[in-house]
Amino acid sequence: MTQPVITLTTDFGFRDGFVGVMKGVIYKICPSANVVDLTHQVPPQDIMRAALVLQASAPYFSKGCIHVAVVDPGVGTRRRAIALQTPNATFIGPDNGVLGLVWKEAVDHLGVSNLQVVELTQSRYFMPEVSNTFHGRDVFAPVAAHLACGAKLEDLGPVVMKITPAPMPEVLPQNDGSLLGEVIAIDNFGNCITNLTRADVLELGPAEQLKVSLSEEHFSFICKTYAEVEPGANLAIFGSSGRLELALRNGNLSEKKGLARGAAVAVSRS
Amino acid sequence: MTQPVITLTTDFGFRDGFVGVMKGVIYKICPSANVVDLTHQVPPQDIMRAALVLQASAPYFSKGCIHVAVVDPGVGTRRRAIALQTPNATFIGPDNGVLGLVWKEAVDHLGVSNLQVVELTQSRYFMPEVSNTFHGRDVFAPVAAHLACGAKLEDLGPVVMKITPAPMPEVLPQNDGSLLGEVIAIDNFGNCITNLTRADVLELGPAEQLKVSLSEEHFSFICKTYAEVEPGANLAIFGSSGRLELALRNGNLSEKKGLARGAAVAVSRS
Amino acid sequence: MTQPVITLTTDFGFRDGFVGVMKGVIYKICPSANVVDLTHQVPPQDIMRAALVLQASAPYFSKGCIHVAVVDPGVGTRRRAIALQTPNATFIGPDNGVLGLVWKEAVDHLGVSNLQVVELTQSRYFMPEVSNTFHGRDVFAPVAAHLACGAKLEDLGPVVMKITPAPMPEVLPQNDGSLLGEVIAIDNFGNCITNLTRADVLELGPAEQLKVSLSEEHFSFICKTYAEVEPGANLAIFGSSGRLELALRNGNLSEKKGLARGAAVAVSRS
Repeated sequence: MTQPVITLTTDFGFRDGFVGVMKGVIYKICPSANVVDLTHQVPPQDIMRAALVLQASAPYFSKGCIHVAVVDPGVGTRRRAIALQTPNATFIGPDNGVLGLVWKEAVDHLGVSNLQVVELTQSRYFMPEVSNTFHGRDVFAPVAAHLACGAKLEDLGPVVMKITPAPMPEVLPQNDGSLLGEVIAIDNFGNCITNLTRADVLELGPAEQLKVSLSEEHFSFICKTYAEVEPGANLAIFGSSGRLELALRNGNLSEKKGLARGAAVAVSRS
Repeated sequence: MTQPVITLTTDFGFRDGFVGVMKGVIYKICPSANVVDLTHQVPPQDIMRAALVLQASAPYFSKGCIHVAVVDPGVGTRRRAIALQTPNATFIGPDNGVLGLVWKEAVDHLGVSNLQVVELTQSRYFMPEVSNTFHGRDVFAPVAAHLACGAKLEDLGPVVMKITPAPMPEVLPQNDGSLLGEVIAIDNFGNCITNLTRADVLELGPAEQLKVSLSEEHFSFICKTYAEVEPGANLAIFGSSGRLELALRNGNLSEKKGLARGAAVAVSRS
Repeated sequence: MTQPVITLTTDFGFRDGFVGVMKGVIYKICPSANVVDLTHQVPPQDIMRAALVLQASAPYFSKGCIHVAVVDPGVGTRRRAIALQTPNATFIGPDNGVLGLVWKEAVDHLGVSNLQVVELTQSRYFMPEVSNTFHGRDVFAPVAAHLACGAKLEDLGPVVMKITPAPMPEVLPQNDGSLLGEVIAIDNFGNCITNLTRADVLELGPAEQLKVSLSEEHFSFICKTYAEVEPGANLAIFGSSGRLELALRNGNLSEKKGLARGAAVAVSRS
């Protein structure tokens, strides 16, 4: 039998043992699980970033994978805890938008009838004592482990019809035909990832005929590879997750230009 | 058969491959082991912090788990290497206080007769060559792997009766009935964790009738959840490991107020 | 059957889920694999550093281990992707020097006839779509997984006779009999690792009769253990990977003295 794979995405960092404890809980309940870290360095409480990581990563995992996302500023309040199941994967987390992108994608591509969402209310799948501060350990990890070792989604709690969407800023079409988007994340290399998808952008025209502006930086076309520009030059490119990214070849664009999340990005025909 | 679980807690960071090498050593000796990182970002040589992570994490792992802690400023000197076994778990590390909290807890809760401590002297369980700088690789990892794959504690070396306690500062009762403690760790969210346990504090009275001071910050009661205060406000709360913590809701208290380990914390009846 | 072990060494960091995605790809193709992180915090595009981590770590893993190294500033260009097999291990990565040290060591110790190197050209071992920016996910991870689950090296592509060497600076013998080397990496503790190997250095004389200079710091002999000097004092020592390292006992030499990669190091008889 294949090991059930459980991935973890949190803003816990690696300093405190929180992630290790979640793994302890999982392996205690389901010793055959294989726990994989997606990232634990989501900026504290950055729901959007966790939603992006989940959306970009999940398609690469095997069918039946369970993805746990814990970026949870509302822990201890009455925000719901949910689990969302598609034919390919199960996603578990607080209902605060962190599952919003995978949910939207599943609705758009698979249709609502192929989705099942439940609220996590059955405390027999939780730790015996549930703290007010650490539901990653007390709720989400044990639920994932029980699912991995045979529990059924419908046993976890009542069906939910609609979940909180991800806080994704809208792409705004302008009167002159251009598109206005923004930087939604900065990656480890300082690349600026935008809310503009390949589909959004290519509606305007072929990539080599489009120009992009980000703050005072101008990009006169969209590259296919980093090597199309000289080291030290700026470039626009569709990143590995299919979103428009702005980068500095062999450098860190975000640091060099002081760019952060929220910076405006415009795309138009040249 | 269940995979034996081995956890690792070190101050090695993730930059240098040191942790990966420890895993290589373990899997080579005991391929069926399942190695789990607790943290490798203990501040360099911060024995207290590693002791806290071990104490907070170990209860969540399955019976028989082996915990390896390597924060080892005395590597290459004559400090002892030890292994400590309780009915639930085995702990391995240098005898410099890093195992002091789990040892004290085991003595207090299980009684000395349920504990077994040995000095690691049997070099047939080490790497063939033992360096003077990296006992994580050469001593602790191979001993853990041999234990996971069947070696017995008593074969590792002679019995030890007393180990080095953790460098935990004492909680000081004051003449006016208040308690004086201190910040012993800052977590990933900037929360200030103190040496005051729930039991210490609740002896003074019910949580909602206690006030807490930390530097120039005052907390007029102890919360049950973060949501009892507004975003941006300070709060006192018992953290997930049962210690009194001071925090800033949706923010980083340590950074905002320049608070570090050692800052004094007072608790009294309001 | 033993689980096949695959190690990963990258400059991806842990923030973005890139590493998690590589693991998803591997486990999907080869569910029985055991993926171990060596490091993902190679400084961006620091080929030398990744080559050092691989060389220092590989000997500690079991026979047949597959090591994947992705520090790949030329991704999307025509740089070759290669796999290198010795009787002990297989190494996979771009042909940009990242495999240069393990290759040189294998040539020196095992002889060319014991090595097999191929270029990765058989796209049936890749992801169905290969991006221009993330060959870790699209080429190197799937090739490693296929090898772990039974593919043969010779099926991956045509034989390569010579690969790109690592960018290791040469040790320069001086007219006065001394050796001139340099700092090639700074580790997590701020220790300065040099290109001077134990063999290089001990040709000059016994360790206790050698003096070392690094910038304005002088070290009057080479220690066997950190404890030979007082806390706060500088020391020279052969590190766990066999290279001469300069360190500050219980401190961070690199930070304190502002030392970086490239700083000159001289060794001579006292």
